[in-house]
Amino acid sequence: MTLLNDTLAEITGLDQAAMDATRERIHTLTMPKWALGRLCDLAVQLAGIAAKTPPPVARRAIVVMAGDHGVVAEGVSLQPSDVTQQMVANMTRGGAGVNVLGKMNRAKVFLADFGMLDRDEELVRSGQLLDKNVGKGTANLAKVPAMSREDAVKAIENGIALAHALADDYDVFGTGEMGIGNTTPATAMASVFTGQPVAALTGPGAGIGPERMAHKVRVIENAIDLHRTDPTDGLDVLSKVGGYEIDAIDGLVLGGASRRKPVLVDGFISSAGAMLAKALCPAVGPFLLLSHASAEPGHCLMCKWLEVNPILHLDMRLGEGTGAAMALNVVDGAVTMLTEMATFASAGVQVLPEK
Amino acid sequence: MTLLNDTLAEITGLDQAAMDATRERIHTLTMPKWALGRLCDLAVQLAGIAAKTPPPVARRAIVVMAGDHGVVAEGVSLQPSDVTQQMVANMTRGGAGVNVLGKMNRAKVFLADFGMLDRDEELVRSGQLLDKNVGKGTANLAKVPAMSREDAVKAIENGIALAHALADDYDVFGTGEMGIGNTTPATAMASVFTGQPVAALTGPGAGIGPERMAHKVRVIENAIDLHRTDPTDGLDVLSKVGGYEIDAIDGLVLGGASRRKPVLVDGFISSAGAMLAKALCPAVGPFLLLSHASAEPGHCLMCKWLEVNPILHLDMRLGEGTGAAMALNVVDGAVTMLTEMATFASAGVQVLPEK
Repeated sequence: MTLLNDTLAEITGLDQAAMDATRERIHTLTMPKWALGRLCDLAVQLAGIAAKTPPPVARRAIVVMAGDHGVVAEGVSLQPSDVTQQMVANMTRGGAGVNVLGKMNRAKVFLADFGMLDRDEELVRSGQLLDKNVGKGTANLAKVPAMSREDAVKAIENGIALAHALADDYDVFGTGEMGIGNTTPATAMASVFTGQPVAALTGPGAGIGPERMAHKVRVIENAIDLHRTDPTDGLDVLSKVGGYEIDAIDGLVLGGASRRKPVLVDGFISSAGAMLAKALCPAVGPFLLLSHASAEPGHCLMCKWLEVNPILHLDMRLGEGTGAAMALNVVDGAVTMLTEMATFASAGVQVLPEK
Repeated sequence: MTLLNDTLAEITGLDQAAMDATRERIHTLTMPKWALGRLCDLAVQLAGIAAKTPPPVARRAIVVMAGDHGVVAEGVSLQPSDVTQQMVANMTRGGAGVNVLGKMNRAKVFLADFGMLDRDEELVRSGQLLDKNVGKGTANLAKVPAMSREDAVKAIENGIALAHALADDYDVFGTGEMGIGNTTPATAMASVFTGQPVAALTGPGAGIGPERMAHKVRVIENAIDLHRTDPTDGLDVLSKVGGYEIDAIDGLVLGGASRRKPVLVDGFISSAGAMLAKALCPAVGPFLLLSHASAEPGHCLMCKWLEVNPILHLDMRLGEGTGAAMALNVVDGAVTMLTEMATFASAGVQVLPEK
């Protein structure tokens, strides 16, 4: 775990000088003090992350991490695991939500297999699906640990390596995922980290009814009891009740922070990855950008634990990176404000400060 | 008031057939049911407004209505009325928030004088500032009605005429405003329409301190007492405690709805214009699109009265149309989803409905 440990050590704080310079610049722009609210906050945070003002944001990559889940055998998901592969194929053809919204906001969408049960090898050979596979789906966490601790580290390090590979060519990262059944490990992880009851964190995922949802709650509660996960040991939580694509998101968040890249964390599943990142490395906190508040009911508890305020509130619950895609326009707004608005001096606008 | 009455009569309901066709299309797209939340809702509403699916949204105009306010003499605003003209000049040079965010989201920004105290005639001659002026600032509503009932109608009709002039060339409208002191009439109107106390609706506007804010509350309370406005008579409210640019926003909202154009209502001031529109014509309700929840504390009460849920929540309080500019990307997201996502059939994705 040299790469993981090295990465954690590289994550230091936000750059205060760049943040101060950004705040000063904002105060000169032709508007009442901080009147663009979150755009101002974001501009400062982005400058702090990049250690540069204005922060670069033109080149953006959304990475969709794919993985399957042994726990699907318990009937927690409406859809069979086959749909993971079908949706990945849809993504290679540009037809999924993340593709069309990512393209709209000028992001390049990458697909990476971190733990798919089955895949079309031709997609790997053609470079459309990056091979970061650590295992053919996790084990059934209702019965055994989802993965070994070694594989947990390997998946995180594969995610970190992906962040490094993209860091020279991209300014902003977004996380995304595709994995039938993955609200189950995400909910389990969220429950362990936050200490909140599973029922408060469990939602309909891709659209299950109340009966199956009650069953899903029981499966997750039993798994947490079975594994006696240690909430202070992120790798313990991850390996017992996590998922490969959630590890990968954690890796992208950590790798991105270590390279001073803003990472737009998508929704419910991605937030579980962000929680893991914060559990492994509290210093990553100020680097987190949460794209949107998911319609999944437990997401607000995850945001509270992460101490982040989501950028968008659009009742979305698709995942894939669609929230990250939409949040890019707010990031653009922050930087456009910073770089293109006139100043009081340049515009000849005279304003009085409140005494 | 032929134009106003004709316009009100032309506002009928949303087109149910276009909405049904849009809902059906959304259910075929490769995602769990309604998983893009507000994007799905918006797509349906936009189709209902346009009576067409997919609804056209490519050509967008944000109209900044400028006006001055006699009540500034009471010390309700930190800035002098001169700043209205200075900021309008800034806007003609593309330096204000609405210019840079509007340009970012591919909107053409129009400026129109509905009631400026003073203006640079060269801007009118060159076509940079549309002349819709009804008066050189309102009268001081703390002492007399802000305007005559005739002028109130004239300003609304000028707004409607502007909507008609733009309707052939633009698919989506956004409202914006510039007018030092205009949170005072907007707050007064909101208090009269909602029946909520002035103090619950009054905020810092462009940044006044607590002492001046308490004074502002007293000025508005006294004005409402003085004029005994009739909340069931929109024109009475408007003429006694309104403002020319708020009339104009009302006119753009009504004119837009009559031409089946979606109008993105900006923030606090624009919402007062939308309230007036709904007071004059309840049928406009389903046409309203509220761009964002303003950081002005009373805005949520206005949204509740309007029965609309703001699209963005970015703690912005700049006005000008900046919220409308930012919300355009969500409008784009809705239509991009509708037109570009693959269907289950086209993508070969097999999903099971919950039983």
